[in-house]
Amino acid sequence: MKIISLKVLSHSDTSLWSPISGGITSPVGFKASAIRAGLKPSGNLDLALLLAPEGAVCAATFTKSFARAACLDLCHERLTRNKGRMRAVLINSGQANAFTGDRGLLDTLRATKAIADSLGLSEEEVLMSSTGVIGEQIPIQSLLDGVNLLVQKLSRTGGDAAAKAILTTDLVDKQIAFEALLGDRLVRIGGMAKGSGMIHPDMATMLGYISCDVGVAPDVWAAMIKRVSDCSFNAITVDGDTSTNDAFIAFASGELLEPKYLDSLECGVKMAAQYLAKAIARDGEGASCLIEVNVEGAKNFSEAVQIGRIIASSSLVKTAIHGADPNWGRIVAALGRSGVFFNLEDICLWIGPYQLIDGGQPLDFKKTDVSTYIRNKMHANYLKDDCVNIRLVVGRGQCSGLAWGCDLSDQYVRINADYTT
Amino acid sequence: MKIISLKVLSHSDTSLWSPISGGITSPVGFKASAIRAGLKPSGNLDLALLLAPEGAVCAATFTKSFARAACLDLCHERLTRNKGRMRAVLINSGQANAFTGDRGLLDTLRATKAIADSLGLSEEEVLMSSTGVIGEQIPIQSLLDGVNLLVQKLSRTGGDAAAKAILTTDLVDKQIAFEALLGDRLVRIGGMAKGSGMIHPDMATMLGYISCDVGVAPDVWAAMIKRVSDCSFNAITVDGDTSTNDAFIAFASGELLEPKYLDSLECGVKMAAQYLAKAIARDGEGASCLIEVNVEGAKNFSEAVQIGRIIASSSLVKTAIHGADPNWGRIVAALGRSGVFFNLEDICLWIGPYQLIDGGQPLDFKKTDVSTYIRNKMHANYLKDDCVNIRLVVGRGQCSGLAWGCDLSDQYVRINADYTT
Repeated sequence: MKIISLKVLSHSDTSLWSPISGGITSPVGFKASAIRAGLKPSGNLDLALLLAPEGAVCAATFTKSFARAACLDLCHERLTRNKGRMRAVLINSGQANAFTGDRGLLDTLRATKAIADSLGLSEEEVLMSSTGVIGEQIPIQSLLDGVNLLVQKLSRTGGDAAAKAILTTDLVDKQIAFEALLGDRLVRIGGMAKGSGMIHPDMATMLGYISCDVGVAPDVWAAMIKRVSDCSFNAITVDGDTSTNDAFIAFASGELLEPKYLDSLECGVKMAAQYLAKAIARDGEGASCLIEVNVEGAKNFSEAVQIGRIIASSSLVKTAIHGADPNWGRIVAALGRSGVFFNLEDICLWIGPYQLIDGGQPLDFKKTDVSTYIRNKMHANYLKDDCVNIRLVVGRGQCSGLAWGCDLSDQYVRINADYTT
Repeated sequence: MKIISLKVLSHSDTSLWSPISGGITSPVGFKASAIRAGLKPSGNLDLALLLAPEGAVCAATFTKSFARAACLDLCHERLTRNKGRMRAVLINSGQANAFTGDRGLLDTLRATKAIADSLGLSEEEVLMSSTGVIGEQIPIQSLLDGVNLLVQKLSRTGGDAAAKAILTTDLVDKQIAFEALLGDRLVRIGGMAKGSGMIHPDMATMLGYISCDVGVAPDVWAAMIKRVSDCSFNAITVDGDTSTNDAFIAFASGELLEPKYLDSLECGVKMAAQYLAKAIARDGEGASCLIEVNVEGAKNFSEAVQIGRIIASSSLVKTAIHGADPNWGRIVAALGRSGVFFNLEDICLWIGPYQLIDGGQPLDFKKTDVSTYIRNKMHANYLKDDCVNIRLVVGRGQCSGLAWGCDLSDQYVRINADYTT
């Protein structure tokens, strides 16, 4: 029996970064706004705008779905053509504008042109993302009618309203801001995200945005955002359904950061992205708790995350957690279909502090203790790392990875049984 | 816009086969029995035995899970060593005997030896399959105490009791029998199956058994059973969770069938296996209806089934059907993450008789009509092909395939939130 159990090395720079109040507009120079444009039947805020300072660099990752929304095709093209030099993102909620035929693309072009005209930018500098019902057209005239007001409302404190305007079935808005002293420079990172259902990002999650008030070379920033995406938005799941509209868009703007601080910056961006990703998993439709799966002893990072996501997305694991039921056989069954080969005699498993399997042999344990542990995590504050922890050692190597998900409740079914009708 | 929409060619031999009453013991020479051995807390029938005539040939497919139960490893070894010459299968319900460490394997060896001794067979001729909670040991003494009674009870009419003894969370037993005149020989095929949750077979389903009273060469029978498995048990899904114990075991016994009738025989075996597979999907935990996904215009059969299973296993598609909600965007989103590339402008989609997408363009349709269609299929009789039909054309080629699943209800969550505690 070999047990290789190494904790993920904490990045030594984690302690540099302190949470501060605020969100996407906390970094210097970023502005945002939101209005009620009449796109959501509820009449809530449904149109948001994020404006980055002149000279900002933008990187993004998008869904790998072959049914990707037209707005994301456009984002991809403009980012490539403009080498990441972007200034603004328009975001609507209510309609995903995916699978809306030719008109969907035309609407995106018209909306981004209206924003560009109103801001005095080239339309090539404007991105758009959408979230809501697939296959429904955006009431485009209502959107266009709102553009001037949206631009007028842009402000340093607009991040809060923007974070609310991008929500759909989410119960809470998701914002974060950190700051750190890198050398003698005070650097701030801000972020906002949305997502609650159709969450199993295959590249990035539903919608995530990050801003940062230092300059970074476009290719360096793009590579950093790809790495951050893989250990944050790409490591969560709510229902296994990859969206047509997943997008993670990140801006860096300001005087160039000294290269020796890039690792520290990446640590902060990762902390912000992981916070937002966990917030999405915890706010999964109908969920009562956050589940964190810590896979150790993997051959590499990506197989660790792959196993973790398979476990976190298993309907049977999720319902067992919902019932505070330490039915660990379902965790092992999910591992069995993960596509990663292992020897049964290498497997060790813990739920919270309780070890249930050692070297492939089931251990005697008090079910009621583990049940109580799980039950106490329901409605716990995930901000304080208070979540149901599953720790699995697979004995293949020395790498580890984290994945996050949530429990599956009858509430999830009710939310999704009549979302459009 | 290309639309390639070819219906699956009905096998010309389908009409040869008539359903008859009975099940696994309908073919000549097969016997079965079942007892209450005290393995299930409910006290219901929980131990079954199937005995095939001398000279029978057996083929089987098992789960591809890397956490496969030890009893299936044993089945695989014995089938290989004995070149398919098997006589009996012992089946217990209550404990899956998967991930039960060394004792799990020892229990399987003891149980099959006891059966072999009582029947006067070599233990190499006896298979075993198990279903129930993973990680729990079989109360082996209770099982061994029941062996003699189980053997005494073997009879031509024992199929009915056996079909009931293998159930766990199933609501109904699943049995089928067909007969046909092939030349001047009356041939019968019988089958039984179980499965309701942890159903997303990756090779074969939870437990499926077929018997047939003609002889077939072992290698011909094995190849036939593999093909049948792929278009029946391997084409269904309930919750996306592949089990550790999936097994499909099929016996053929009797005078050798003339080779010219092998296609007709395969047609009958396929009809029996598809019937049982659909019965499992319809009896999915908490389900109210059977969903059939017909994918046309695929490059080959396996990508058609792959797309069909992704759609049939999407939590969001399943909840939409449960809510009689024609939210077709979720079907397209599931297609988008199926891993199969397609051009949006090739896509055509129907729910029942209603076309919703034509050449990639959403059509106007009356939501209430489609809702009513879906609602009328709830609790409908799937035996009469009465199910929610989703038909998708992907424009890649000329092949088609079927997959089956069920809706996702709050009842599914309640069933699975406390299965062991």
